[in-house]
Amino acid sequence: MSTTDEDRQAAELTFNVLAKRCSSRPVLEHMTGKWGTLVIIGLREGPARFNELRRRVDGVSEKMLSQTLHSLERDGLVERIVHSAIPPRVEYRMTPLGVRVTDKLAALAEELEASMPEIIEAQSRYDAEQRA
Amino acid sequence: MSTTDEDRQAAELTFNVLAKRCSSRPVLEHMTGKWGTLVIIGLREGPARFNELRRRVDGVSEKMLSQTLHSLERDGLVERIVHSAIPPRVEYRMTPLGVRVTDKLAALAEELEASMPEIIEAQSRYDAEQRA
Repeated sequence: MSTTDEDRQAAELTFNVLAKRCSSRPVLEHMTGKWGTLVIIGLREGPARFNELRRRVDGVSEKMLSQTLHSLERDGLVERIVHSAIPPRVEYRMTPLGVRVTDKLAALAEELEASMPEIIEAQSRYDAEQRA
Repeated sequence: MSTTDEDRQAAELTFNVLAKRCSSRPVLEHMTGKWGTLVIIGLREGPARFNELRRRVDGVSEKMLSQTLHSLERDGLVERIVHSAIPPRVEYRMTPLGVRVTDKLAALAEELEASMPEIIEAQSRYDAEQRA
């Protein structure tokens, strides 16, 4: 085994998002950045054309949706499918890898939505203490 | 039941991060923003003083760590414990609510770290296609 192979194997064993230079960190940022999470959750509802996805993710601009999709496509989490038609029809969908990696993100959003009453209570308590 | 109570109940049943004005969206952003995810993952390793946590989350600035902790504290996910000592010793830790809501975030990071070899392959493929 060459040194390069050994290096690669060692690196694969030690991915750690808490380490500044780990290559997992930018991928985490693509998935969890301002729009990453919402685009993923929107796309998990099913394949969508660009404008359809833009309607699902309320408030996202054309530019941000386009940037977010590009990063996720490069990471192999999302794929761009061109259906042959005139004019060609382009759809975005999660890859199997994307579905697997982002299962936890969808679960996080569900857990958060279910916990919102408690979180809103905590926020009111915090704000009242700050005013006191 | 007054209209306000009905409104509140309806709102509690329909939290949805995909809706622009839903109060769950800023909380999701605190948890998944540039530093939110990493601070939560760092803090899930155990309670920590400010500087200890700063070392765990490689690369975070004092200002960003402080802002991130404040948002998470307000959302009831993190608590600030002041131990009586001279000088007082301040520690941050996850609340039970915070542990529950962020279980999925920790699981996401683990899944991502485990999938990095596949993701790196996808990135190389994408870059090669862009050059072709």
